[in-house]
Amino acid sequence: MAQILTGMTAVIFVSTRSADDDAGYAAAADAMVRLAARQPGYVAMTSVRAEDRRGITVSYWADEAAALAWRDQPEHAAIRERGRGVWYDDYQVVVATVDRAYAWGRA
Amino acid sequence: MAQILTGMTAVIFVSTRSADDDAGYAAAADAMVRLAARQPGYVAMTSVRAEDRRGITVSYWADEAAALAWRDQPEHAAIRERGRGVWYDDYQVVVATVDRAYAWGRA
Repeated sequence: MAQILTGMTAVIFVSTRSADDDAGYAAAADAMVRLAARQPGYVAMTSVRAEDRRGITVSYWADEAAALAWRDQPEHAAIRERGRGVWYDDYQVVVATVDRAYAWGRA
Repeated sequence: MAQILTGMTAVIFVSTRSADDDAGYAAAADAMVRLAARQPGYVAMTSVRAEDRRGITVSYWADEAAALAWRDQPEHAAIRERGRGVWYDDYQVVVATVDRAYAWGRA
């Protein structure tokens, strides 16, 4: 993963998948990962979903403007509508500014 | 979940569990959830782990001081050592200040 630096914007997306349309959701999720990575100011994205259908995706952006541009990207906005219509039972979005970051790995 | 407000501190913990000591890890994780919730300034915590052993936990704190106090809480610090010794292959911690938050749920 790219290095996360002070001042970057983190977007924390916590969701519960509905029981509907697993195939459509998976295709859209893959497409959004690829689309996000091509956006100006994209830094990194990490995503985990558990068997109980709860998931957390965190994306990092160079600055607030880049995060807002991704929010407003037309294909992303259209997919979000589909998410509310079909794929999600609930979600929460938290936007935050990075203060510090560090990583550890087994030597 | 408690309401997430501007100015709160988010701690984003992304980890890969090792293949070792599932029972010990589960007990410690439960204990830490309970301990965190008793800390001054605790707001909320949400956690997801996938079948591939990658996990994301996000905790929210009233302010930076509360997040630092949790980092330095002695039982938590001891558990973290155990995490590096046994339970995790790698992890990343990002500390960020909340700019805004919103939630959506199916009516």
